[in-house]
Amino acid sequence: MASLLRAATWGMFPWRGYCSRGTQGELSEGFVEALKAVVGSPHVTTAAVVREQHGHDESMHRCQPPDAVVWPQNVEQVSRLAALCYGQGVPIIPFGSGTGLEGGVCAVQGGVCVNLTHMDRILELNPEDFSVVVEPGVTRKALNSHLRDSGLWFPVDPGADASLCGMVATGASGTNAVRYGTMRDNVLNLEVVLPGGRLLHTAGPGRHFRKSAAGYNLTGLFVGSEGTLGLITAATLRLHPAPEATVAATCAFPSVQAAVDSTVHILQAAVPVARIEFLDDVMMDACNRHSKLNCCVAPTLFLEFHGSEQALAEQVQRTEEIIRHNGGSHFSWAKEAEDRSRLWAARHNAWYAALALRPGCKGYSTDVCVPISRLPEILVQTKEDLQASGLTGTIVGHVGDGNFHCILVVDPEDHEELLRVKAFAEQLVRRALALRGTCTGEHGIGLGKRQLLQEEVGTVGIETMRQLKATLDPRGLMNPGKVL
Amino acid sequence: MASLLRAATWGMFPWRGYCSRGTQGELSEGFVEALKAVVGSPHVTTAAVVREQHGHDESMHRCQPPDAVVWPQNVEQVSRLAALCYGQGVPIIPFGSGTGLEGGVCAVQGGVCVNLTHMDRILELNPEDFSVVVEPGVTRKALNSHLRDSGLWFPVDPGADASLCGMVATGASGTNAVRYGTMRDNVLNLEVVLPGGRLLHTAGPGRHFRKSAAGYNLTGLFVGSEGTLGLITAATLRLHPAPEATVAATCAFPSVQAAVDSTVHILQAAVPVARIEFLDDVMMDACNRHSKLNCCVAPTLFLEFHGSEQALAEQVQRTEEIIRHNGGSHFSWAKEAEDRSRLWAARHNAWYAALALRPGCKGYSTDVCVPISRLPEILVQTKEDLQASGLTGTIVGHVGDGNFHCILVVDPEDHEELLRVKAFAEQLVRRALALRGTCTGEHGIGLGKRQLLQEEVGTVGIETMRQLKATLDPRGLMNPGKVL
Repeated sequence: MASLLRAATWGMFPWRGYCSRGTQGELSEGFVEALKAVVGSPHVTTAAVVREQHGHDESMHRCQPPDAVVWPQNVEQVSRLAALCYGQGVPIIPFGSGTGLEGGVCAVQGGVCVNLTHMDRILELNPEDFSVVVEPGVTRKALNSHLRDSGLWFPVDPGADASLCGMVATGASGTNAVRYGTMRDNVLNLEVVLPGGRLLHTAGPGRHFRKSAAGYNLTGLFVGSEGTLGLITAATLRLHPAPEATVAATCAFPSVQAAVDSTVHILQAAVPVARIEFLDDVMMDACNRHSKLNCCVAPTLFLEFHGSEQALAEQVQRTEEIIRHNGGSHFSWAKEAEDRSRLWAARHNAWYAALALRPGCKGYSTDVCVPISRLPEILVQTKEDLQASGLTGTIVGHVGDGNFHCILVVDPEDHEELLRVKAFAEQLVRRALALRGTCTGEHGIGLGKRQLLQEEVGTVGIETMRQLKATLDPRGLMNPGKVL
Repeated sequence: MASLLRAATWGMFPWRGYCSRGTQGELSEGFVEALKAVVGSPHVTTAAVVREQHGHDESMHRCQPPDAVVWPQNVEQVSRLAALCYGQGVPIIPFGSGTGLEGGVCAVQGGVCVNLTHMDRILELNPEDFSVVVEPGVTRKALNSHLRDSGLWFPVDPGADASLCGMVATGASGTNAVRYGTMRDNVLNLEVVLPGGRLLHTAGPGRHFRKSAAGYNLTGLFVGSEGTLGLITAATLRLHPAPEATVAATCAFPSVQAAVDSTVHILQAAVPVARIEFLDDVMMDACNRHSKLNCCVAPTLFLEFHGSEQALAEQVQRTEEIIRHNGGSHFSWAKEAEDRSRLWAARHNAWYAALALRPGCKGYSTDVCVPISRLPEILVQTKEDLQASGLTGTIVGHVGDGNFHCILVVDPEDHEELLRVKAFAEQLVRRALALRGTCTGEHGIGLGKRQLLQEEVGTVGIETMRQLKATLDPRGLMNPGKVL
C-alpha cells in the first residue's frame, strides 16, 4: 500500500517521466492474485513500465504510478474489483484515455488503476430519441464515426480524442459548447459502480428520457466528479442532428475589446454560432507559422456556423455586419470541407504551435472562465502579467463561454522558471475569481486546483462537497487526493 | 409540534379545503415569540385561515396547514429562522407562489411555513453576461416585465406565474423547454440557507459564469430538490436573447403516430422549434369550446417558431413540408401578436377547458415523460385506459420532450371515482416506467409520487438520494415527507 511519505511528496511541477519508483508497489501477492481472479491474469499487471504509463495524464503533474493496473472486460468485473479494493482499503483510480490536464489519474496514494478502455462497445443507439449508450472506452471520435450515417452527432469536443466517460468525469466541453452545451448538458443517464461495488443508475436502469423532475439530480452530481465518487461504466448521451451545412471564418480585430464586443453582440443577436474561438496576437502568429496560415497577427476570432444553406447565409451576413461595426477586418471564409479542416486543425494544433515557439520546451495549459463582460479586462491584465513575468505564453479560448486558456512554454530543467509559471497560473486564477469567474471552465480541479476551489466556493461550499464525498465514499478510497 | 397521528393520516385524494384543524398548532408561545423576534410581529401569524391558505398547493392533495406562517424580509432573517427551527426540532416548509401540483407545501408534520414572497427584488441584471439575480418572490412574469427593454427574456414557462425560486425547487419546465431547456439548464448559481441556517452559494458567492468544471455540481443538486435540502433565497438565472420575430401555428393529424412522427422529423431536421405542443382530440374539442377556437377535432400540434423574419420563413416552410409528408393538414398560421396570444391563451387554459367538460367537478393533472419514440404507444394505451376506466380526461403535452399530462375531471364527492383516478394515474406512471420513462417530467415528486420514484430509480438510487438527504438535513426537518 501507499506510504504516507509518498503521498506527501507529490508536487505540482516536477515533470512526468521523473518516476523514481521502478519497483512493484506494496500490494501483497495474495491481493494481486485476487485481482487476477476477477479479471483474468492477462488483464492485471504490476510491471513498472505499464504502471508508469498510468501514473500521469498530459499535464505537467509528476508521474505517480499506481501499484497495479487492471483491465476489466465488463461492468460485473468492475463491480467485483471495487468491492475487493474497498474491502481491503486499497485506493481505486479510474483511467480512460489519459488525456486529462490536471493530474486526475496520478495515484497519489498508490492503489489499483482501473483502465476501462477494454469496455468500448456502443451498447445502444436510439436515433428517434437522440440518445446513445456507450461503454467507458468509447472515444468521441469513435462515436462520431459510428454515427456517420445516422444524421446525428455528438458535438462536445475538448480537442483530444478523449474517452466519453472520461469526458463525463471531467465535465469536459471545448469549442462547440457555446451552441451545444458541455457534458453537463449532454448526459442523460450514467451507470456507476459505487466505491463498495454496488451499481447505481443515476436516472434509473435503462432510462433515457429528455427531461425529468424525479428526485435529486444524481446524474448531475457525477458529471464532473473526476472519479472521486465512483467508476462510470456506461453513459447515456444526448445526440444532436448533424449540421446540414457548415461554414467557418477567421477575422482580425484592432483590440481584444473589439473581439469580445463582437462576440457579445453576435450572441445578443441570437446568431446560433457553433464555435467562436479567440486567439491573441502571439497565438495567431504561432499558428501562422506552425500551420502555414496567412492570418493577420492580431487578436483574432475563428468562427463556425451550422445550419441549412439559407440559414448560413443569414448567419454569415449578420455576423459580418456586427464584426465590421466593431472594427473587425480581414475576413476569410472557409466553405469547403478541406479549408475548414485546415482552419480547425490549426486551432486544435494551437498547443503544438505554442510549443514550437521554444523548441525543446514543454507546455503548460491553464484554464479559467469569467463572465463574458469581464473577458477584455482579464485578457489585457493577463497579457501584462505575461510580459512582467518574462514567460512565453499564448492565449486561446472559447470566448462565447468566457472560457480561455493560457499556454505557457517552459524549460522543464529550469526550476526557477517553473516557479514563475506556478505563480503566474495562480495569479491568473485569482484574477478570474476576483472577476466572479471560476478556476476552471473545463479542465477540472484534479490535483493542482484544490486550494483554488476552496477560494472559489468558500467554506460552506467546500464543506458541503466534503460531506457529499464522505457520504458516497466513506473510506476515501475513490481517486483519493483529487478535487477536495 | 406535529403529532404522529396527524402525520399518518394525510392521504392523496381528500380535497384541499377539507381542513379540520381550525385551532393553532402545537408551537409554544415562547417559540412564536422567538419567530416574531426574528422577522417582526407583523410578519408572523398563527391564524387558522392563513395557515390553511399555506397548507396546500393547486393539486388535489389534502390541505395540511403549518403551525405558523412567517414572512422573512431578507436572507439574514431566513438564516436566523432556519437556525431557530432547526435548533428546536421544528419542521421548515418553504412557500413561494403555491402553484405546485404535487403537494410540495403540505405541512405533513406541521411546523413553520416560510413564505418567501416578500423577498421580491431583482438584485442584479448583467445583460452582456445574459444573467440575472432574483430573490425568491420574483415571478417569471415579473422578471420578463422587468426585462422588456433589455432585448433579453427568461423562457422557462410552466404556465402558472410561479415564483422563480419555486420553479428552481421543482425543476420546472413547460412549453419552451424543447428549445431553451428546463430550469436544470438555466440556473447558474443559487444562494441557499441550509437547514441549520448556514449560507451556501452553490457556485461560489456572487459568481455567474456560463460554465465550470470546478468540483461537484451543487447547483444541479439543489435544482429540483423541492425544498427538502434547504431554502433557496436567491437564484442566478441564464437569460436568452428575446426573439426578433415569432410565428405560431396549429395543425391537425390523422393519428397520434402522425403527430409524433412529425415532431421527431422536425427535431431531426434541426428546425429550432420553440414550442411544439400536442393536444388529443378530446382536449382540442374542449379548447375549441372553451376558447372559441375553430380547430379540427383531431390529434393536434400547436407550434411556435422564434427567429429573424428570414429564418422564420425557412423554419415554417420546412415544418410544413414535414407535416404534410406525415399527413398533417388544416394549417392555421398566427403571425400577429394578437392571434398568437389567443392561441397560447387557449393552450394555457387547457386546464379550464377540461374542467368545463364536467361543470362542478375538479381537475387532477398527471405528468409523465417517456423517450419520444415511445410516445405514440403510451398515448394510445392511455386513451384506451381512459375509456376502460370510464373517467373523463384529456391529453396535452410537451411532445418535443416526450412529456405529457393527462387532465382528469372528477367529482370530488365521489370517493369511488377518486379511487379510479388514483388507479388510473398509477397505471399511467407504471406504463411510462415500463417504456423507460420517468414518473414526472416537470411537476416533481412531492407527496404523491414517492413510491413511484422508488420504482423508477431502484434500490441503490433511492438509497443514494436518502444518503444525500441525511447528509444535508440530518434531522429531517426540511420540508419533511416530500420526495423520499
